[in-house]
Amino acid sequence: MKVGLIGFGQTGRAVATVILQHPDFELEWVLRRSNKQAGRTVSEVLEVDNCDSNGTVISMNSVSIDNLLDEKRVDCIIDFSSEDGIFEYGRQAAKRGIRIVSAVSHYEEKQLSFLKQLAEKTVVFWSPNITLGVNYLIFAAKFLKNIAPFVDIEIIEEHFKQKHGVSGTALKMAEALGLKQNKINSVRAGGIVGKHQVIFGFKYQTIRLTHESISREAFGNGVVFVAENLAGKPSGYYTYEDILKPFLNERTPN
Amino acid sequence: MKVGLIGFGQTGRAVATVILQHPDFELEWVLRRSNKQAGRTVSEVLEVDNCDSNGTVISMNSVSIDNLLDEKRVDCIIDFSSEDGIFEYGRQAAKRGIRIVSAVSHYEEKQLSFLKQLAEKTVVFWSPNITLGVNYLIFAAKFLKNIAPFVDIEIIEEHFKQKHGVSGTALKMAEALGLKQNKINSVRAGGIVGKHQVIFGFKYQTIRLTHESISREAFGNGVVFVAENLAGKPSGYYTYEDILKPFLNERTPN
Amino acid sequence: MKVGLIGFGQTGRAVATVILQHPDFELEWVLRRSNKQAGRTVSEVLEVDNCDSNGTVISMNSVSIDNLLDEKRVDCIIDFSSEDGIFEYGRQAAKRGIRIVSAVSHYEEKQLSFLKQLAEKTVVFWSPNITLGVNYLIFAAKFLKNIAPFVDIEIIEEHFKQKHGVSGTALKMAEALGLKQNKINSVRAGGIVGKHQVIFGFKYQTIRLTHESISREAFGNGVVFVAENLAGKPSGYYTYEDILKPFLNERTPN
Amino acid sequence: MKVGLIGFGQTGRAVATVILQHPDFELEWVLRRSNKQAGRTVSEVLEVDNCDSNGTVISMNSVSIDNLLDEKRVDCIIDFSSEDGIFEYGRQAAKRGIRIVSAVSHYEEKQLSFLKQLAEKTVVFWSPNITLGVNYLIFAAKFLKNIAPFVDIEIIEEHFKQKHGVSGTALKMAEALGLKQNKINSVRAGGIVGKHQVIFGFKYQTIRLTHESISREAFGNGVVFVAENLAGKPSGYYTYEDILKPFLNERTPN
Repeated sequence: MKVGLIGFGQTGRAVATVILQHPDFELEWVLRRSNKQAGRTVSEVLEVDNCDSNGTVISMNSVSIDNLLDEKRVDCIIDFSSEDGIFEYGRQAAKRGIRIVSAVSHYEEKQLSFLKQLAEKTVVFWSPNITLGVNYLIFAAKFLKNIAPFVDIEIIEEHFKQKHGVSGTALKMAEALGLKQNKINSVRAGGIVGKHQVIFGFKYQTIRLTHESISREAFGNGVVFVAENLAGKPSGYYTYEDILKPFLNERTPN
Repeated sequence: MKVGLIGFGQTGRAVATVILQHPDFELEWVLRRSNKQAGRTVSEVLEVDNCDSNGTVISMNSVSIDNLLDEKRVDCIIDFSSEDGIFEYGRQAAKRGIRIVSAVSHYEEKQLSFLKQLAEKTVVFWSPNITLGVNYLIFAAKFLKNIAPFVDIEIIEEHFKQKHGVSGTALKMAEALGLKQNKINSVRAGGIVGKHQVIFGFKYQTIRLTHESISREAFGNGVVFVAENLAGKPSGYYTYEDILKPFLNERTPN
Repeated sequence: MKVGLIGFGQTGRAVATVILQHPDFELEWVLRRSNKQAGRTVSEVLEVDNCDSNGTVISMNSVSIDNLLDEKRVDCIIDFSSEDGIFEYGRQAAKRGIRIVSAVSHYEEKQLSFLKQLAEKTVVFWSPNITLGVNYLIFAAKFLKNIAPFVDIEIIEEHFKQKHGVSGTALKMAEALGLKQNKINSVRAGGIVGKHQVIFGFKYQTIRLTHESISREAFGNGVVFVAENLAGKPSGYYTYEDILKPFLNERTPN
Repeated sequence: MKVGLIGFGQTGRAVATVILQHPDFELEWVLRRSNKQAGRTVSEVLEVDNCDSNGTVISMNSVSIDNLLDEKRVDCIIDFSSEDGIFEYGRQAAKRGIRIVSAVSHYEEKQLSFLKQLAEKTVVFWSPNITLGVNYLIFAAKFLKNIAPFVDIEIIEEHFKQKHGVSGTALKMAEALGLKQNKINSVRAGGIVGKHQVIFGFKYQTIRLTHESISREAFGNGVVFVAENLAGKPSGYYTYEDILKPFLNERTPN
């Protein structure tokens, strides 16, 4: 699968690294707002060896999106840019049937309705945290809440000292479970990469669902997982739940 | 719902306590092998106040099952006795359409095929650990294994010092996940009531599903949950998965 | 060692149960404010078998403390009553050289200065949470804070749904570590017996000290531990730190 | 403090990075067996900005230790090389009174007795895992074992899939606590950086001491901590316990 990546910040770079190393994916280009490293090969910039991809770093200032999409064709665009990035390329991608996978962490109603409009012509997917782990956790937690609607639920999220505000992922979890924000306990200490725990307190037993981040590359694996599972799907707007649900029906090992 | 309970060991008593206190359940009788406490009211024996149930402790030595089932009619039999308990009452219950919920911790092929035979005439359910928590955990773990078949999985189970052998629940988890027994790590220390953790190790993230037992009454709540969800079902053999799956389709809070 | 227990609430009863079963301790009496069970043998009331203690439940309404201490002599008084309990028996115990071990959860300045006055004549000990585990945790946490005064510290405490307010033990931990109360995260869910975790966040590593309560009898073991270690000590006011410190100098296994 | 570092593998490099960034330390040189990068500035090789250190990478093949120690004087040598590294520089350092801090992960009796011989002339320190966290954990665990010699203890260590054998740190913990190796439970899954947990199981409570590694730089901070606390000490052989014990007597925050 040929992909183009939009956004080349810390997470974008980690995602590019994972894609470059994946045998089934080819990174055709990375599109960024800045002129830095423009024209260089992505694998060279990121010092990734043993990959046969010749994808290039391209600055938005120096190309027209239409030309780019025509000349360096891709099957799928991965968006790790910002809220308004979608307006730069969305229409051009959709009319060519290029799948759009957005991992932008926040959208307003304006962007969301634009995404859904694009979804009439191509496959459009959005997840504000594209790691498999966090989305699995939310799915599994909602399922347990369905089974036991009156169970007590609290969330503990732990991150490095400098992280400001409540974790966006924790907020999303709380929203998915219908919890007020005061059920989120935020710990800030040292260099903790990121830990989310959902606690289900029953009278005679306790269940804990815990996600621990090791590194940013988890986003890259999430992208790969989503992109693989969207391949072959008809046009439409997809969420992570749509990706996960079919796995419920597969044969389990025994 | 009127229920009869078979078995009056430590777990049986905890289950009876929960049933006695539940507004929608009436405990008609407890059937046990021993003559102890025979003829006494269950609520009195267990010192449970504020329940209007007059269920009696009955010894197997002093009744015929047919008479018992005719005279003290129940909708459902809960079996916390032993492997061969089912042969004492199974046929008699099935021909009257009484639902059978077995929580016996181990069956051989012989008992299992008998259960399935009974299931032609009535609702038959078996779970070797009838708590909601453990079964939810197994379900959620199998689902994640379906999504990520190559993830590394290990189990840690912790129990009080005196517990012999590997926990049956951990063995069941391992079996459900297709793991060899050497992936189970058993900790025995002090008075730990019971803790099971399934660890999913991805390259860049770790997911942990943890169940902690607080007390034996969790089995009682499991019985109540299962019995409520079996009500109205057609004859057949049911597992915990059959009970849990329908909750996947309910509307989640948002 | 002969002991008298003051207070016979839930914790007092659990403590009595542990003392009754300990080969080196004899429970001479339990003194309580209420008249309930007065005159009965403690082991009978608590249904503890296999103990040769004939201690009696005594109501404060029916005895003078002086008579009690003369007629049913004890080496040590264990106080699980309330804030003002000490005024009922303190002076009488101190002048007879009876050691006083108070596990009352809160004292004002008034009671504390009275305790210290009594400590001129006998051994006086107070700990608002007399379990070994919690006190060890506080000691170990203060030690780490000494080593690394600038480390980020947060506390998570988890308890059953009905528990009101922040856990007193967590408050004591925070106080011992010089933390503001906003560093305590309180989770209330289901039937969690009690869990306290102190998190030390370093830039490149995290240390967690965790205490999990299994049952109230831990207070009984704490009493036994403290009483044994106070035996033979000269008059004075002692805290848990005074009990723990000597163990630092013992020979460790290697 | 001027330091020289011996060994430039993955951990050596992480340690060098921390030392370069510390305001109170100057990295005079890194000595390594290989010729790679020889002659280059360490900060340049490691791409560490904002440090005024001009320390150089030096190959053992191109210098005599005596010349090096005379020309580029240091107060302290940090050894992250291998078992026999000490024989290359030990005598030369000791006779000049240069402190030796070895973090080599394993020594035989032969090296150990050589270290103790050197300790007659200078300060010599060895720890097979020089992080503060692991050593604090061992100290705190031994202390608890002293208090409660009959408590049940088990260790759980978790590491990335590829790690072979039982963790050396876990082995050291077990040895310090007098535990047989079968009390160590080893989990290998995904990319877990490193987690060690010592579980103390009491009848009515459980205590867990947990250390989680975030990254290799923790070794650098351990070196800094040890080197600072050895400064001004008389000649002799020191262990981590000697470094930690004085902190027990400092004034705690309240």
